[in-house]
Amino acid sequence: MEKINLARKLGQFSAHWQPKIIAELNGQQVKLVKIKGGFVWHHHEHEDEMFLVVHGSFRMELRDRTVELREGDMIVVPRGVEHRPVADEECSLLLFEPASTVNTGSAGGERTVPQPERI
Amino acid sequence: MEKINLARKLGQFSAHWQPKIIAELNGQQVKLVKIKGGFVWHHHEHEDEMFLVVHGSFRMELRDRTVELREGDMIVVPRGVEHRPVADEECSLLLFEPASTVNTGSAGGERTVPQPERI
Repeated sequence: MEKINLARKLGQFSAHWQPKIIAELNGQQVKLVKIKGGFVWHHHEHEDEMFLVVHGSFRMELRDRTVELREGDMIVVPRGVEHRPVADEECSLLLFEPASTVNTGSAGGERTVPQPERI
Repeated sequence: MEKINLARKLGQFSAHWQPKIIAELNGQQVKLVKIKGGFVWHHHEHEDEMFLVVHGSFRMELRDRTVELREGDMIVVPRGVEHRPVADEECSLLLFEPASTVNTGSAGGERTVPQPERI
């Protein structure tokens, strides 16, 4: 039961689209991820996913609209909803999602991180 | 599926120790709470609880030690562990916890908020 500092944890990695687990509770995981550029379109069959902007900004593309998010903004993408995060500049996000969540969801492919590192 | 801005939500209430629900996902709730002064000693029988400091600072008193937390710090208090948050000045926290979690846990009493408001 240690204090976790987000900035310090973010200083421990630099690769984009590689989520890192920083805490677990109630079967859920708290992750940090740095993103830049566009991800793959995907959805999660069984998991709702929460994104909170820690630094920077990004946009969440949905099939019918796009939501722009800045530092201090968050969004919950319900299970089954296709989404694609895109960041023009590097953006740091805190994710809150079930431990079963795989980053690429339905899409799979080379950008999948099956076992995120715990930092 | 709307964007949620933490600062804007925090501007919608002022009472201390009155958690507000701002999102729900996977049976979990995301809450905001403003605290000042000391709370009651309590634990949660079945719920792990996460606290992330959005503004200000507070200390989490545990039976064997105290953890000081500032903006950008978080801590997970596992189920069964007695704790008591204390803030000398007003502090705003984001909480992640199961929907079943009641603020005073094992302690009950007059500071219990059985049905937090959703904002």
